[in-house]
Amino acid sequence: MSHHQALNSRLFSFVGASVGRWSVIATNALVGDPLPNAPCVDVISGAAPITAQSSAWVLRGVTSNTRYVTTPERAALVAKQVDVGRSEATRAALIPIRKTTAWWDLPQDERRRILEESSKHISIGLKYLPAIARRLHHCRDLGSHEPFDFLTWFDYAPEHAQAFEDLAGELRATEEWKFVDREVDIRLAR
Amino acid sequence: MSHHQALNSRLFSFVGASVGRWSVIATNALVGDPLPNAPCVDVISGAAPITAQSSAWVLRGVTSNTRYVTTPERAALVAKQVDVGRSEATRAALIPIRKTTAWWDLPQDERRRILEESSKHISIGLKYLPAIARRLHHCRDLGSHEPFDFLTWFDYAPEHAQAFEDLAGELRATEEWKFVDREVDIRLAR
Repeated sequence: MSHHQALNSRLFSFVGASVGRWSVIATNALVGDPLPNAPCVDVISGAAPITAQSSAWVLRGVTSNTRYVTTPERAALVAKQVDVGRSEATRAALIPIRKTTAWWDLPQDERRRILEESSKHISIGLKYLPAIARRLHHCRDLGSHEPFDFLTWFDYAPEHAQAFEDLAGELRATEEWKFVDREVDIRLAR
Repeated sequence: MSHHQALNSRLFSFVGASVGRWSVIATNALVGDPLPNAPCVDVISGAAPITAQSSAWVLRGVTSNTRYVTTPERAALVAKQVDVGRSEATRAALIPIRKTTAWWDLPQDERRRILEESSKHISIGLKYLPAIARRLHHCRDLGSHEPFDFLTWFDYAPEHAQAFEDLAGELRATEEWKFVDREVDIRLAR
C-alpha cells in the first residue's frame, strides 16, 4: 500500500488524542473491547497518521451510497435531513460499531427486513431529524484492517441531548442490535 | 495513511506488468479511458506497491458482502457456484468498471430493480455457473482514490470461452450497463 496515492475524497479520520476540537465528556464501551482513553477528538477530512505521537487512537471511514433506503424513505429523509457541523450543534457523539459475521453473511433482503421492517432504523433516525444530524462512515471495505465496520457521527444542540439519549436507546433495543458485537459510545462537547 | 497498518484480509491487488502469471491476450477499453498496456497480470492477495517499477498499473479491491442478492437467489447461487482458481480454468477476464454518479445516487430499491428485475444481472451470472467462476472486488469505499468502482475476475476452461463471450454480451446489453461510464476488458491465459 503506497502512501503516495491520492485519498478517497469521502474519507474521514477521527483522532482521539490529548488535544482536539472536541472534548470527551464520556466514553462507554457498551459491547466488546473498549478504546484507549482520550481526552479530545478531532474530525479530519482525509487521512490522519495512524501513529501520531499524541493520539490514543485513529478511526477511519468513508461516506458512501445508501445500502437500504427505498425511494419513499429517501424522499422523507431529503425533506428533513441536515448536514452535521451546524454552529449550534455543540454536542456530538461518535459511535463506532462492528457487526457479527452472521450479519454480513445474510442476503440483502434479510438484512433489510431486520434493519427496517423489524428494527425501524431508518424511521427512528427520521423521527429525530432535524434536531439530530448524522453522518455515517463505512470502514469494512477499506484496504486496511479496521476495528469497526461503521463510525456514526451525530451532532446536536445541548437542548436536544435528551432526544439523542432516546434515539440511541431506541436503536439499541432492536433486533438489528443483536448483531452488534462491538460498540463504543463517545460523547463530546465543544 | 500509514503503511504500517494491517491490511484488510479481503484485499486483492491486480498488477499489470512486464511479467506475471497471466498473459494478456487482448485488452479493450469499451467505455472511457484505456489502461496503459501491460503484457502480463498478477493477482496478489493483499497490497502491491502502486509504483512497482515494472508495473503499468495496479488495481485494488476487496471482496465484500452481497449488496442485492435475495434469499432464494442466494440459495440458487450456493447450489451452483464455484471458487475461482480451479486447475482447468486457464482462461480469465479482468473487467474493471466504474458507474456514474447517477447510479450511486439512486435509492437501494431502484438500484435493485435495474440490476435484477430489469437487467437480470444475478440470473445471467447464475446461468453460466459452474462453467464461469466469478469473484467481485469493490474499490469505491477504499481509503484511496481508485479509478474504478468494481473489479470482476472471471475464470473458465478454454472450452467455455464462447460461453464467456455470451455472458459478457448479455450484461452489456442491459439497462444497468447504461450506468457504466468506464469499462476495460482484459482477457488472459496461463
